[in-house]
This record gives sequence, structure tokens and C-alpha cells, in this order.
Amino acid sequence: MSEINVVVAGASGKMGSEALRMIKKHAELNLVACIDMKHTGKKVNEVEGLPNFEAKFYNDIDLCLTEVNADVLVDLTSPKVGFKHTKAAIVHGVRPVVGTTGFTPEELDELTALAKEKEVGAVIAPNFAMGAVLMMQFSKLAAKYFPDIEIIEKHHDQKLDAPSGTAVKTAELIQENRQSKAQGHPEEQETITGARGANVDGMRIHSVRLPGLVAHQEVIFAGPGENLKIQHDSFHRESFMSGIKFAIDHVINMKELVYGLEHLMLD
Amino acid sequence: MSEINVVVAGASGKMGSEALRMIKKHAELNLVACIDMKHTGKKVNEVEGLPNFEAKFYNDIDLCLTEVNADVLVDLTSPKVGFKHTKAAIVHGVRPVVGTTGFTPEELDELTALAKEKEVGAVIAPNFAMGAVLMMQFSKLAAKYFPDIEIIEKHHDQKLDAPSGTAVKTAELIQENRQSKAQGHPEEQETITGARGANVDGMRIHSVRLPGLVAHQEVIFAGPGENLKIQHDSFHRESFMSGIKFAIDHVINMKELVYGLEHLMLD
Amino acid sequence: MSEINVVVAGASGKMGSEALRMIKKHAELNLVACIDMKHTGKKVNEVEGLPNFEAKFYNDIDLCLTEVNADVLVDLTSPKVGFKHTKAAIVHGVRPVVGTTGFTPEELDELTALAKEKEVGAVIAPNFAMGAVLMMQFSKLAAKYFPDIEIIEKHHDQKLDAPSGTAVKTAELIQENRQSKAQGHPEEQETITGARGANVDGMRIHSVRLPGLVAHQEVIFAGPGENLKIQHDSFHRESFMSGIKFAIDHVINMKELVYGLEHLMLD
Amino acid sequence: MSEINVVVAGASGKMGSEALRMIKKHAELNLVACIDMKHTGKKVNEVEGLPNFEAKFYNDIDLCLTEVNADVLVDLTSPKVGFKHTKAAIVHGVRPVVGTTGFTPEELDELTALAKEKEVGAVIAPNFAMGAVLMMQFSKLAAKYFPDIEIIEKHHDQKLDAPSGTAVKTAELIQENRQSKAQGHPEEQETITGARGANVDGMRIHSVRLPGLVAHQEVIFAGPGENLKIQHDSFHRESFMSGIKFAIDHVINMKELVYGLEHLMLD
Repeated sequence: MSEINVVVAGASGKMGSEALRMIKKHAELNLVACIDMKHTGKKVNEVEGLPNFEAKFYNDIDLCLTEVNADVLVDLTSPKVGFKHTKAAIVHGVRPVVGTTGFTPEELDELTALAKEKEVGAVIAPNFAMGAVLMMQFSKLAAKYFPDIEIIEKHHDQKLDAPSGTAVKTAELIQENRQSKAQGHPEEQETITGARGANVDGMRIHSVRLPGLVAHQEVIFAGPGENLKIQHDSFHRESFMSGIKFAIDHVINMKELVYGLEHLMLD
Repeated sequence: MSEINVVVAGASGKMGSEALRMIKKHAELNLVACIDMKHTGKKVNEVEGLPNFEAKFYNDIDLCLTEVNADVLVDLTSPKVGFKHTKAAIVHGVRPVVGTTGFTPEELDELTALAKEKEVGAVIAPNFAMGAVLMMQFSKLAAKYFPDIEIIEKHHDQKLDAPSGTAVKTAELIQENRQSKAQGHPEEQETITGARGANVDGMRIHSVRLPGLVAHQEVIFAGPGENLKIQHDSFHRESFMSGIKFAIDHVINMKELVYGLEHLMLD
Repeated sequence: MSEINVVVAGASGKMGSEALRMIKKHAELNLVACIDMKHTGKKVNEVEGLPNFEAKFYNDIDLCLTEVNADVLVDLTSPKVGFKHTKAAIVHGVRPVVGTTGFTPEELDELTALAKEKEVGAVIAPNFAMGAVLMMQFSKLAAKYFPDIEIIEKHHDQKLDAPSGTAVKTAELIQENRQSKAQGHPEEQETITGARGANVDGMRIHSVRLPGLVAHQEVIFAGPGENLKIQHDSFHRESFMSGIKFAIDHVINMKELVYGLEHLMLD
Repeated sequence: MSEINVVVAGASGKMGSEALRMIKKHAELNLVACIDMKHTGKKVNEVEGLPNFEAKFYNDIDLCLTEVNADVLVDLTSPKVGFKHTKAAIVHGVRPVVGTTGFTPEELDELTALAKEKEVGAVIAPNFAMGAVLMMQFSKLAAKYFPDIEIIEKHHDQKLDAPSGTAVKTAELIQENRQSKAQGHPEEQETITGARGANVDGMRIHSVRLPGLVAHQEVIFAGPGENLKIQHDSFHRESFMSGIKFAIDHVINMKELVYGLEHLMLD
């Protein structure tokens, strides 16, 4: 495999620094620069907690992509900054790999058109954990045959929202294939409010919040005499890195924008 | 082991017929009579679906216990009939083993006093599944060290009430040892109502209802970096029979009434 | 939906009688005859334990398919008898739905050619539990991205072989997509022989045998920081019936033989 | 609660530094010194990766316990060093809390006698994860009623030994109460060697090794129609710290040595 020159934006954040550690492990990936507001001018190895790279920090993407010879931009910043970065990368002919849930449909349309025009590959994904992507896609497929479904998602007890974004996204994908149905006995009663969980078109979602946990979800499909369960456990944010590596490897040979890792994995 | 003569009340019901099958498997247990409104005068082996016993059906407990030589009465009827049967058995010197959740505290007090006076052993239990009894008792013990607890109970989708009686009972036992606590983040928000389940003193109970399931419960105890889970799966009502056998074996040597199988198992 | 006339072969066996109960539940399915050596000449409702159908038992498939107007033959007999039945059905223009793992490749080739020639639909499947079929197919797909895989299968303790046929089949499907790999630490040591399970090309299979269990399997896919688990629980042989119903519905509109339910479900 | 002065030995190791973070979280715990060969003379806050404490590093336990006013010594070193430290602490009237599996019975006897003579409390434990301790003790209790038991332990794939020490220890505890039994069908056969796991007096242990995992164990107890499962998941070494805190709180009021956290938790 030939070498790939990578720029990482958001490199001093939690996900960004994890991405640097991932790059360190793969001989065919070269870190050629980082983009980050905080450490402009420093080298990566001068910042505490980051791996030993000679690459420099930039705060301006255009300057960065002009000065270094980059193949791929890994962007792990915010939706607002990420949009600007993605656009600039495509214009510079650098393939963006972007982790975000925050782009609007209009922004995605604009980026898709731009990538097509410039014939530059791009991967934008709300979730780079390959196991989570498979869990969601398998759930969508299984929903065709099992309309009785409950989702149990479990997270650490510092999480603010319930259900989780992944659970809601899973339910949406399921709804594309599930025959609408009110589950449970028609006359079932909650003797304590909330016992039966959140009701999404008759499906149920239960949110567990406990210390010790990280990010876990099980989707249970049920029919007469049988259950099928699809479960994902994320023990560490390292789980997102294999998906980013996978996207880097693919984007090199692409000529357009793909939204969602599943299209590279299952289509 | 010497032989034990058993009368089964409610013998043609689902639990009663299961008890007959259990007795059939144990050479040291003799079925000497059944009590049941429907089949008076018939022999057990004349009723479709019941095992091959010569024992006769009675509809009157006093007549039955006068005519046959019984050591133990296994009562699997209703609370109302069961109370009458239990009383009669103790008076006749026959040890009752009774599966019911329905006796009032006053009824239990009366039976306890009567058993003590007559020096007749008796076992009354709301749950004869030994695994479920252990799950509840272990949960009570663990609650001392882990105040962060969530219960997920799963049943077939024909169940009417949520949470299940076992989940509520488990929560009550936990509350005896758990330091009161509002779990989850203080500012957590349900974006879909019910996601966080039923709130019992800050603990959470989630009720799953799906076809294919029978009766299942997991109790999760959580602390920094770790989870302890105690789970019971009941796949078949046969699961109640080992507890009934266990109670029969013990009641023979008892001289008073015990309420709850846990007092024979863990004290 | 128009009505479908069904013949069931092996109707007095465990699976066959379950199939009759399934037919009873669906108004659009008519039971028009049964084939079975034991009850020739009787009506179904004259045999203890079977549902109330007027249909007659035959012992000769040609006679049966000549006398009754059948659309589909559900065959739940043995491989030897099943092969003869399947052939006869195709010749009579009756679509066979056959549950068996026992046909040889030559027999399958012969039946495939015959069905094609006669333009008669046919479904032959080693497993009609739709959840189990999905578990296996999803496992095959996931193996592409996660070469570290362990299978834990759990069955009742009366099972003679370990690993189960389903586990072995799952491993074979996985091998089609999995990059070969010796899992675990290169220097790992078993201090008690067998701890690390059965070794299939570096993958591991563990067979649990316990009372109370029915048929369960989990396939765990692992990567850095994450696990994906696909689990199937069969609680009752009723679990095979939704797949048979699904095959009946499809075979009506087919003009050739399909081997394996997955080709109707996921292709 | 009055304040407790703590010395930590092995403070720059993985467990030791975790202990420092735990002390930081509890206002009633004062770190008064550390013992460690590497950083003698430095302050804790001068060592990278350790929390901000003014306490000093010593390399000599006698000097340390003479110069500082300590209530408790937390020792997370090696068995050899730990033994010397424990002895010294008791002589100085400082209560040791020691995490080790490595003391010989003779060493334990000697320390027990010394603690009794000096009337100094001491806690030595092979496992400070309170959930793991409960898992093992509950397993021992349940074994009395369910002789059919299988253990599935799951660890990261860098682990060298299988089964894990915890699984072996659990099996030993179970054997104290379990009626000896060859599990599974008498004629069961492994078609692939190792499928049925490690055989410990008829019980079975299965060792799963996969990336992503940390340290997990489930113990399954089975009877007719039911399963009881006791599962512990350790997601992070932080899980050992609540047990160390618990031991510190108790040892203050003790006058003898206790081996094993279970004696403080369940007796």
C-alpha cells in the first residue's frame, strides 16, 4: 500500500488525539499537519499528551493545505468549523473524512455537488464505530421480518439526554422497514409510570444510565418462540478509529461524497 | 429417604398438573389423592393430560384428609380456597406447602399461630422458583454496596401489568438496604417520555414485553468502573417444581410455618 | 390474499403437528391432506393432540396429490422420504416447502433441475427459524470487518454433539468473509485443557450445555474498543413456523427451487 | 467522619496512581506520603500523570512511618515488598490495606498473629472489586441449590492464561458447596476438541479472549426450566478503588487481620 498524507483538524480534542494515536500505529499513514486554534506554530510533540510527531499545528486551513502535500483531511471539529474545512479541502483536492452529526441537508447537498464537480472523494459520517454502523443496518434489515422490537440502550450516568441519539437513529432506520404496530397487550397497564419505556410508533426504547458503563445498545427482535438480539458495546472511543482508518483507505479511490459509513460497508 | 405421602390441590390446573409430573419423577413421593372441583370421583389417570396415577380426586378437603394417610398437602389453588385448605391441613396434622401471593397479613398471622399451636410445619411462598428467590435475596444483599441500580424485566407480550410483581418485590427488598438516591445526571432529560423507565425512589425499572419471551429479569448494580448483574430466566413453569420439592423435603421436619422459601435456603 | 391449499407430510411428528397448529391460525391456509405412515385413513381430528381439521391422512403421496387439489406440500419427514416426496410434488405441480439438512448435493441438483423444467417453485431449507437465518447471514456480513470472532452456543443438556450444527454452519459462513487469523495472544496457555474452546481457523466456539436451556447462540465480533454481538434465542419449536409460513407465501409465485431461506429474505 | 491519614506504597504504578486519584476525591482522606523506589524525595505533584498532592515520596517504609503521622498504609506493590511493608506497618501501629494474591499461607499466618498481638487492624485481599467479590460469594451460595454450573469468562486478547484466576477461584468456592456431578449428556461428544470447555469436577469453564474487552465473567446456574446468572463486568481498574476505600473505612476500627473483602461485606 502506498503512503497517505493526512492532516488532522481538531487534533488536540479527545477524538482528535485518539486519531493521532491511530495514525501512529499505521506505517502507511503520514501525519503532515494538524489544524487547531490552540497550538498554532507548535509541533505536535510539543503538546502534552499527544504522540511524538514532527508535524506542525496550523490555524488556517487554506494556508495549511497550500503549504503541505496532503491526501486526506480528517476533520473532528464542530459542525460549523467542519463545514468550512470540508469545503476548503475539496477545493484543494484533498479528500475530507468528517465525523459529525451536525451538517444540515442543505450543507450536505452543497458539499455533495462540490465533490462531484471537483471529482474529489469525501466521507462524512455521524458514526465511525463500525460495529455501531452494522448494528443499525442489521436492525433495519431485521425489522422487515420482526415488527415486535424493543431497544435497550445503556450509557454512563453523566449523559444528559434519553433516549440516546443512536437509539433514536436506530428506531428511524427500523421504521423504514417495520410494519407499524402497537406492541404489547392492548390492555397492558403501567402500575408505575414509564415502566414500558418510550413509545416510538408502538416500538419501545428503554434508557439505562449507570456509572461504570460507557455506550451500549441492544435491539431485540421477537417472533413466536424466538428472539434475535443485535448488541453493540463501545468500551472506549478508540472504537471510532477503525472506521476512520477504513474511510481513509476508501476515500483515496473515490470521486464523490458518501454520507454514512454503511454505504462503504454494505452496499 | 423414607416415603412421603402427598395430596395435591388444584391438580388439574397448569401448576397442579406440573406438580403431578414432578411427583412422578421422584420415587420417594407418593401421590395419595388430589383435590379439585372438576373431577371428583375420577382417578388421576382417567383425566386427559395428567400422568398415570391411581390416586382419586376429592372435592372436600376434610373428607380427603380423613380417608387418606397424607404427610404433605401441596396447594396450588386460589388464595381463597388455599386459605381454607391450609387451615384444614394443619388441623389434620398434614403439612401444607402453598404457592400463593394472595394471603393477607391477618391470614398469615392466623395460620402461623395455628401451625405453632399444632406443631405442624408449613411453607407458604409467593415464588417457588429457587433461582428467582436467590436473585431477589442476592439483590437485597448487593444493594448495600451499590446504590445505583436498574431492573430490566422481560415477559411475553400477553402480560397485562408493568412492572411485573417480581420486579416490584425485588425493588422493595432492595430498598431495605439501599441508601436512597436519585440516579442519573441531575439534569438528564427525556426527549421521549418514559425512556428512563419507572422511578422507584430514584432506582429505575424497565419492562420489556415481546412474543417468544417467558419470564426474565436482570438486576444491574453499578459502581465506578464495574457492573454486577444478577439475572433470572424462567423458560418454563417446570422451574417452580424444584422449589416445591425442596419445600416438601423440608416441611416434613419442621414444626412451624415459614413464609418465603428464602428462609429455608439462606438463613 | 387468495387461499392456499396445503398438504403436510410428517404431520404427526413434533414439527409436523406444530405446522398444523400454525395452519390453524391462518385463515388463508387450507389443510387439504396429511401424509403419514401411522394414521392412514383417519381424519386429523381423530388423532389425539392434533388440531381440529377434517383433512384425511394418506400414506401414498401420489394418491394424495391425485385426489386432493393442493398448492403446496410442507414436508417435515426424514431426508430419505422427503426426497421422494419433493420429487413427486414437483411432478404433480405442487410446490414443496421442505425442512431438512439431509439432502446430498446430487439430490439438490436433481431437484433444482426438475423444478426448473416443470417451472414449479420449491423452497428447501436447513433452518426455518427466521431469526437464526438472519443471525447467520449478519454474521457472515460482519466477518468482513471484524476478524476476531468467538461463538458461544448454549443448548439443553440432552444434546449429544458439540459444537451444534448451527454453530458449525455459522463458522463456515463466517469463513467465506473472514480474513484468516489466529486469535488471542500468541503465547496464551490453557492451564486447564479446553478452556479456550474449539479452534476453527483461529476462531473459537464454546458449547454450553445446561438444563433449562433450549437453543441459543451468540456470535461476538470484536475490534479495538468495541464488540458487536448477534444473538439468537429459540425458546420453542414454534420458532420454525413463521419461516414455513413465509416460504409458503413466497413459493406460490416462484418458478424454481431455492435452497436456504436467506435467499428469499435478504437477496 | 474524622480524617484519615494515608500512605500509598507503589504509588506510581497503574493501581497506585488510581488509588491517588481515589484519595483526591474523598475530602476525609489525607495523603501524607508515598513509598516508591523511583521518585524518592520528589513531591507527588512533581511526577507526570499523578494528581496534585504535596505529599513526598519515600523509599524506606520505616523512615516514612516514623516521619509522618499515618493511620493507614495502602500497599499496591509486589508480594515480596508488600510483605515487608505490611509487617512494618503493623509494628508501627499503622493499619495496612493490601491488594495481593501472592502471600503464602505461612506469611498470612505470621501477619495474622502479629496483627493480633499488636491489636492493629489489617485487610489483605486478592480482589478489591466489590462486584467481583459479591459475584464469587453469591456463586458459592447458589451452588448449594444448582449443581449444574458453567462459567464464561471474557478478557482482552492480551491475557496469557486461560481460565482466568478469578474463574478458577470462583470454581473453587463453588466446589465447597456443589454436589459433585458430571454435567451434560453422558454420551455427549466433541466433534471439535475443546468445544465443551475446561472440565473442573464436571463443571465447565469457557475462556473468551477478544480485543475491546476488559475483564468480564458470568456464572450460570441451571435447573429444570430456569437459569440464574451472576455476571461481573470490570470496565476499568477504577473498579478496585471502591473496595480499597471500603477497606480503609473499616480497618480503622478493627483490631485484627482479615483476609478477603467478603468477610467485611457479607459476614
